[in-house]
Amino acid sequence: MWSLEQVSQHSSPASCWVILKNNVYDVTDFLQEHPGGAKIILKYAGRDATSAYEPIHPPDALEKNLPSSKHLGPLSATATQSVADDQQNRKKTKDEVRVEEALLQRPPLGRILSLADMEAVARKVLSHKAEAYYSSAADDQITVTENARAFSRFFFHPRVMRPVGKCDASTTILGYKSSIPVFVCGAALAKLGHPLGEVNIAKGATTTSIIQMVSSNASMSPAEIIAAAAPSQPLFFQLYKNVNDAVAEKRVRDVERLGYKAICLTVDAVVPGNREKDIKSPWVMEDLERGSPKLHVEGEGTEDGDAVFGTAGALIVNDDRDMTWEKTIPWLRSVTKLPVMLKGIQCVEDAVLAAEAGVDGILLSNHGGRQLEYSLPPLEVLYKLRKQRPDVFDKLEVYIDGGIQRGTDVLKALCLGATAVGLGRPFLYAQSAYGEAGVVKIVRILEREIITGMRGLGAASIKDLKPEMIERVDWEPLPRAKL
Amino acid sequence: MWSLEQVSQHSSPASCWVILKNNVYDVTDFLQEHPGGAKIILKYAGRDATSAYEPIHPPDALEKNLPSSKHLGPLSATATQSVADDQQNRKKTKDEVRVEEALLQRPPLGRILSLADMEAVARKVLSHKAEAYYSSAADDQITVTENARAFSRFFFHPRVMRPVGKCDASTTILGYKSSIPVFVCGAALAKLGHPLGEVNIAKGATTTSIIQMVSSNASMSPAEIIAAAAPSQPLFFQLYKNVNDAVAEKRVRDVERLGYKAICLTVDAVVPGNREKDIKSPWVMEDLERGSPKLHVEGEGTEDGDAVFGTAGALIVNDDRDMTWEKTIPWLRSVTKLPVMLKGIQCVEDAVLAAEAGVDGILLSNHGGRQLEYSLPPLEVLYKLRKQRPDVFDKLEVYIDGGIQRGTDVLKALCLGATAVGLGRPFLYAQSAYGEAGVVKIVRILEREIITGMRGLGAASIKDLKPEMIERVDWEPLPRAKL
Amino acid sequence: MWSLEQVSQHSSPASCWVILKNNVYDVTDFLQEHPGGAKIILKYAGRDATSAYEPIHPPDALEKNLPSSKHLGPLSATATQSVADDQQNRKKTKDEVRVEEALLQRPPLGRILSLADMEAVARKVLSHKAEAYYSSAADDQITVTENARAFSRFFFHPRVMRPVGKCDASTTILGYKSSIPVFVCGAALAKLGHPLGEVNIAKGATTTSIIQMVSSNASMSPAEIIAAAAPSQPLFFQLYKNVNDAVAEKRVRDVERLGYKAICLTVDAVVPGNREKDIKSPWVMEDLERGSPKLHVEGEGTEDGDAVFGTAGALIVNDDRDMTWEKTIPWLRSVTKLPVMLKGIQCVEDAVLAAEAGVDGILLSNHGGRQLEYSLPPLEVLYKLRKQRPDVFDKLEVYIDGGIQRGTDVLKALCLGATAVGLGRPFLYAQSAYGEAGVVKIVRILEREIITGMRGLGAASIKDLKPEMIERVDWEPLPRAKL
Amino acid sequence: MWSLEQVSQHSSPASCWVILKNNVYDVTDFLQEHPGGAKIILKYAGRDATSAYEPIHPPDALEKNLPSSKHLGPLSATATQSVADDQQNRKKTKDEVRVEEALLQRPPLGRILSLADMEAVARKVLSHKAEAYYSSAADDQITVTENARAFSRFFFHPRVMRPVGKCDASTTILGYKSSIPVFVCGAALAKLGHPLGEVNIAKGATTTSIIQMVSSNASMSPAEIIAAAAPSQPLFFQLYKNVNDAVAEKRVRDVERLGYKAICLTVDAVVPGNREKDIKSPWVMEDLERGSPKLHVEGEGTEDGDAVFGTAGALIVNDDRDMTWEKTIPWLRSVTKLPVMLKGIQCVEDAVLAAEAGVDGILLSNHGGRQLEYSLPPLEVLYKLRKQRPDVFDKLEVYIDGGIQRGTDVLKALCLGATAVGLGRPFLYAQSAYGEAGVVKIVRILEREIITGMRGLGAASIKDLKPEMIERVDWEPLPRAKL
Repeated sequence: MWSLEQVSQHSSPASCWVILKNNVYDVTDFLQEHPGGAKIILKYAGRDATSAYEPIHPPDALEKNLPSSKHLGPLSATATQSVADDQQNRKKTKDEVRVEEALLQRPPLGRILSLADMEAVARKVLSHKAEAYYSSAADDQITVTENARAFSRFFFHPRVMRPVGKCDASTTILGYKSSIPVFVCGAALAKLGHPLGEVNIAKGATTTSIIQMVSSNASMSPAEIIAAAAPSQPLFFQLYKNVNDAVAEKRVRDVERLGYKAICLTVDAVVPGNREKDIKSPWVMEDLERGSPKLHVEGEGTEDGDAVFGTAGALIVNDDRDMTWEKTIPWLRSVTKLPVMLKGIQCVEDAVLAAEAGVDGILLSNHGGRQLEYSLPPLEVLYKLRKQRPDVFDKLEVYIDGGIQRGTDVLKALCLGATAVGLGRPFLYAQSAYGEAGVVKIVRILEREIITGMRGLGAASIKDLKPEMIERVDWEPLPRAKL
Repeated sequence: MWSLEQVSQHSSPASCWVILKNNVYDVTDFLQEHPGGAKIILKYAGRDATSAYEPIHPPDALEKNLPSSKHLGPLSATATQSVADDQQNRKKTKDEVRVEEALLQRPPLGRILSLADMEAVARKVLSHKAEAYYSSAADDQITVTENARAFSRFFFHPRVMRPVGKCDASTTILGYKSSIPVFVCGAALAKLGHPLGEVNIAKGATTTSIIQMVSSNASMSPAEIIAAAAPSQPLFFQLYKNVNDAVAEKRVRDVERLGYKAICLTVDAVVPGNREKDIKSPWVMEDLERGSPKLHVEGEGTEDGDAVFGTAGALIVNDDRDMTWEKTIPWLRSVTKLPVMLKGIQCVEDAVLAAEAGVDGILLSNHGGRQLEYSLPPLEVLYKLRKQRPDVFDKLEVYIDGGIQRGTDVLKALCLGATAVGLGRPFLYAQSAYGEAGVVKIVRILEREIITGMRGLGAASIKDLKPEMIERVDWEPLPRAKL
Repeated sequence: MWSLEQVSQHSSPASCWVILKNNVYDVTDFLQEHPGGAKIILKYAGRDATSAYEPIHPPDALEKNLPSSKHLGPLSATATQSVADDQQNRKKTKDEVRVEEALLQRPPLGRILSLADMEAVARKVLSHKAEAYYSSAADDQITVTENARAFSRFFFHPRVMRPVGKCDASTTILGYKSSIPVFVCGAALAKLGHPLGEVNIAKGATTTSIIQMVSSNASMSPAEIIAAAAPSQPLFFQLYKNVNDAVAEKRVRDVERLGYKAICLTVDAVVPGNREKDIKSPWVMEDLERGSPKLHVEGEGTEDGDAVFGTAGALIVNDDRDMTWEKTIPWLRSVTKLPVMLKGIQCVEDAVLAAEAGVDGILLSNHGGRQLEYSLPPLEVLYKLRKQRPDVFDKLEVYIDGGIQRGTDVLKALCLGATAVGLGRPFLYAQSAYGEAGVVKIVRILEREIITGMRGLGAASIKDLKPEMIERVDWEPLPRAKL
Repeated sequence: MWSLEQVSQHSSPASCWVILKNNVYDVTDFLQEHPGGAKIILKYAGRDATSAYEPIHPPDALEKNLPSSKHLGPLSATATQSVADDQQNRKKTKDEVRVEEALLQRPPLGRILSLADMEAVARKVLSHKAEAYYSSAADDQITVTENARAFSRFFFHPRVMRPVGKCDASTTILGYKSSIPVFVCGAALAKLGHPLGEVNIAKGATTTSIIQMVSSNASMSPAEIIAAAAPSQPLFFQLYKNVNDAVAEKRVRDVERLGYKAICLTVDAVVPGNREKDIKSPWVMEDLERGSPKLHVEGEGTEDGDAVFGTAGALIVNDDRDMTWEKTIPWLRSVTKLPVMLKGIQCVEDAVLAAEAGVDGILLSNHGGRQLEYSLPPLEVLYKLRKQRPDVFDKLEVYIDGGIQRGTDVLKALCLGATAVGLGRPFLYAQSAYGEAGVVKIVRILEREIITGMRGLGAASIKDLKPEMIERVDWEPLPRAKL
């Protein structure tokens, strides 16, 4: 039972304690191992760190990373009260005040007609940090934009005089039923946007019968998330493979035991992308709070090392940078019987290699434009694959993600041979704006748009969608209006 | 003879009466059948609904949809006076005030030099509801814009040293004479823009000797409209086929008896498109009147089902979604001897099927971009048809609509083999801005532009317009300035 | 000797007199023949019309159009004084006041570095009417802009390590020496921009040794203009062929006698283009003077017939609309021994026909985008001609005009095989901004830019410019900044 | 020992003395030889010219250009003090005041995440003159922009499942080691941006182990610059060949003796480009100081000859305009044993000629868009060379410069076969903003971006970068946001 004064003695790199949810932890030895760097922990040395810690760490992070000898035990009742009072009395930051007002100004959910409408609300109600983390992408954000623009180059050849009174948009993904050819793509840190985080998504996906792919970097544990879904509702697990095979194996076996139905191995994010908006986010908030920008002082340190990876970078610092076709796929097959999907295939050559390696599915993805700037848009890779190697579609299932906003986008991917498409950010935005109801809402919107589109195309079921119904035009269509 | 108090007793779903043009109707049983949903009727339950009803329903709508037993008879004289007084004393909405002022600010008709000038005036004098209904298109309004942009990719190879002193722009459409190769395309709800509605168009088309295609969804009855035209002036009828063949047959036989000269079967609108501007229009007006936006209340219904089809959706809720080449064309031929045109062919394959099915004409159209977003622009389909299947032009007449604004647009379509082009929105705008005189004006403008263009091309008559006079360029020309 | 009162009696269509430069004319019979329509003359019926007449009519217009019996003789001295006083005391229009101020604000001529700088000054100092007439083009002004944009698609393959210390940009056009491969293109109504009008251009062209092509529609007579040039300086004459062969022949023989060295027959302007900015110009000025726009009055005439041709339309109302290769070229050869150039060839096919017809030169031109909207840019026609029919360049000289602003534009045309390029508007702008000095200035700018460009390309003389030095790129380069 | 009064007697073209760093010089005879024209010197005739002279002349300029007999000796102590006082008391110009404030507003260097961030700071802290000189380019600045845009057309085919844990970005250039495949391109007049000028770059390049190419037109002498670098650090010399072979030979032998490791012969700048922003810069500052623009006076000189070359033009007025492959390369080989690189090859044909001439390397460059407008972007030339003549890459090293801003830009050039890329302006901006630390910073940024990019591509070393990893797309990707 610790007093605040006792904890406050340990506020230096030499001895660094922090309070998390009314328990005290000695993180002195852990400082150098922290994926997010020592600096951010030292900011909270000797005091309560809960509000900074919670939205970006799953609840099992402490157990997994800190030996139990460093769990020093609970605060005293007085100290607990004092921490609560401090939290209560704390002056709100300007950003918190802005967010509270924005939440009150949300339009009725019934007036949200499109995913763009939903994103517009979310962008307003998100904290600056969350908005920066969710929306940021590599370098100059070209790739994230081009992912979406790619869809605008594909036009339809709609067929008329075909019966579409009955129209069915359901399909299967790796053998599991989905109400529409859409799944929730692995997207990290949902709690940054809403206190219920990934649970909102799990519940909404259950309600609407679509599959959720849960990220290794979720802000909740795989167990918490799957518990929120209906028992009958399949979930997939997105694996960031740890450099240590034993750690990685344990992770895979854990999620298989929890009931996850497939392993999606991330192959496009062995190092963090350069997400400047995310990296700059703390400075923006600091300047906002201060009311004026920080200025250059001669002699000041010229590097700001901790900062250059942002929230994103910290999450994958221990990932395996030396995976190979020869080594990694057989290893994964050896530790699980679940179907295996590769997330992050970015060219035809690697799609062919994946088929040869015998994986069950590939997700054509450039990580939502968050990794390598100028990676080809997934829809373009899909189009090339269709033209150059149509045989690959017979060997495994192909999915894409990146830039999908409308039912017609989904239909374009399906015409070209995709089994389904993944959406990441739209689900983060939806749950941030309206919680679980937001998640349900955007699935309903997509369902309506997909069925309207199928009828417009003359397709009564998913199998009626054909490559000849689509054409890549040679002019530059207008982009959708920017949010 | 009803008093207002009596009517006002019936203001719930259990018993719902409304007043229309001083007659009382019991619509309780009809609530669930109303194409526009029950909610909108209930807004007027127990009171006068005339101002909302009239601009969007043809006068025969009541007879056709409500058994005579539900026609409860007229209001008392006192009640009639009271309704009139209410209408008189009613505080004008902000939108009505704006429209009245805009009408006073119109420039002299003599200063309208182009269809864009006309549209600019109309956009100002239209009610928000009408402007939204007329201008709205599917999803992000890409297709409606691309329809127009397509024309900008075609440049001319003008020929010189050819005699063009005498220049004749007249032609025939399905055997009927037209002063210029332009017809009025089926466009619904003209009364939303002007109290005389489709009659303005019928009179203007007579004056200028062009053919009007009258929509099933006109705000006036086919009989009223044809009565306004000169007896010698041909009109075509645009059919939205009812799911019930008997209802559809009656409709066809009725218009044939009235003197319509062709049936244009709509094939691209079996379900309503997603026209968000139209759907949002009531909310915009509501917020405008209230002076602040409606806000989200937790627990509120998450769906707003009635709204998601807008004005447009309500019109086609009973249409046949299971038409086929094998069934529908022979049926239509069996119930009429009139020539048959298909409206809404969107690809080469279906143009070929139409020729094989033996129809008399096809209108390459994506419904002005109002149905399936990313349907290829009609001009591009025409260009493909010319290149891939020039034989189709020998088997039937080909028309296009969508995005035509200038005489040169018309000439481009004709060079590629079109017999004529249809314009829809421009006629709605013209009659909204200046009534019948507006309709005449834009035909005169088009005539002048077409003849100037023919002379510039070295063409003295329509048959001198050839594919070799036109080229699809490989760069992106500047768009016309946006209105 | 007439008094003002006497003249003022004749102010109706029945008897219409006007005063021009202190002489009285009876134009009653001429009203219906006036190319600009009766309405504009009647505005000045019974009074002085000099200020409206002078800038847009050559001084010989009266002799040519009005029988001498209608020349009623001079005003009395009193009347002359009165007219002068009126002119003196007349309240300046808002536009005149603006122009006077703009003239005072011109930057020093030494600071004009480019043709764009010059145009920017001119646009400010021109009257609204002049600016509208000079800058206006057909329909939506797409063609005029595309003419210029075409140049941006051509990039150079510059050659290095070639001696360019001595660099000579001179050439010959139809055998006549020119200091640079640039000529003044026929451009009408220079007096609208500057009181000395075409004489500014003639003097500046003499100073810089370039050839001026004088328009039939110049605001000064061919005699006045050639008199301003040095005797040794060649001038060409741009012929708008009158529908009456005898009138046309007299015109040709007159200019040959005056010493013009070539006849440039205009073939792309048999009817006026639709130049809306020009047509709208009087309304803009009227509204400006009134301080508020003119509004629509129900019942008002719906056509404004006189207006729809603008200043431009009036000039060519009597031109021959039925010229042919078979008839017109032999006729022209029969009435003159001068070399013949055709101005307004717009496609490869007609360039070939011109070569077969044996003309000496062709000017690929779409009339600066003022005639048929969407006529291919001349540079694109030149490029096609080079690729499809390079033999044509051996049979006649080829020139282009339209959109040229920089020395590199000139060099691009020459690399593709043009002998020289014509500029029209830039000379009108230059003389409007600074008179003769402005004309000299832009030739000097072009000369410097051409020589800098030749050296950059590794070309020491005009003949070193080759097709292989240029490439049409397949992307859309940035446009130059709009003025 | 001169008094100020004595010097002030000589303030005319007939006798013109100036004070430079407290010494007096008679420049009367030199006036006509001054590359920047006489006018600019006469502005300072009879008084101190140090502040104008120093930032744009290397310190040995006087010895090289003025016979010692014209070095008249030092000012008296009183005069020296007086000059210093004047300098002290001089009212700062508006531009100087703005720069001083901007320097105080710089963000901390740690917050500079990209070269664009750095440029944004530099653009604010540079004097107008420096900003104009650094940023200006030919004509309408199309080429400088297209150089950068070219990179946006190339997208990657990233490869996954390749070991990239160890990743090495180092390479060699003409046999000399470089930490990353980037060198400092010859860029003139660094002192315009920072008092330590090129020395900042030399020190920063040493710290980060990259090679600096020093320009003939540096604002410091080759000796001063190489002295600032570590002895082990290689530097190259960019030669502008003097028209006089003997002068040129001396220059080459001097730099070889000083220890420079290669000669980069400039072949694309035999005459100054037309850099209007640079030329206009003095007028802009003059008007700024005056508070109103200078106006045109009739009769004023119509040419402003001194001005039309700007700062840039003055620097190369004595360069050899008649270099040839046959004469110049053998001459250069005869006067030095150093490796020879040609800077400014702009097409495939000349790359082939360079290989045949046996040079060691070619820098594909259009001088940063500062010479011939519409010279093809270097990346496009590189792409053509790879496709048309891949054999050239085996015969010499190929580099490019122009428009490089990001690590991915570097990687694109290397995938296509470039050995390394040069950056010019970014180093000028970096040293202007933060001196030497700025130079180090941008190399660190590029290093981080290059290594992140290589890992994203699946490349562990420079040799793993292959043409098949890159694709030139056929659409127009979005540009990076403009600064």
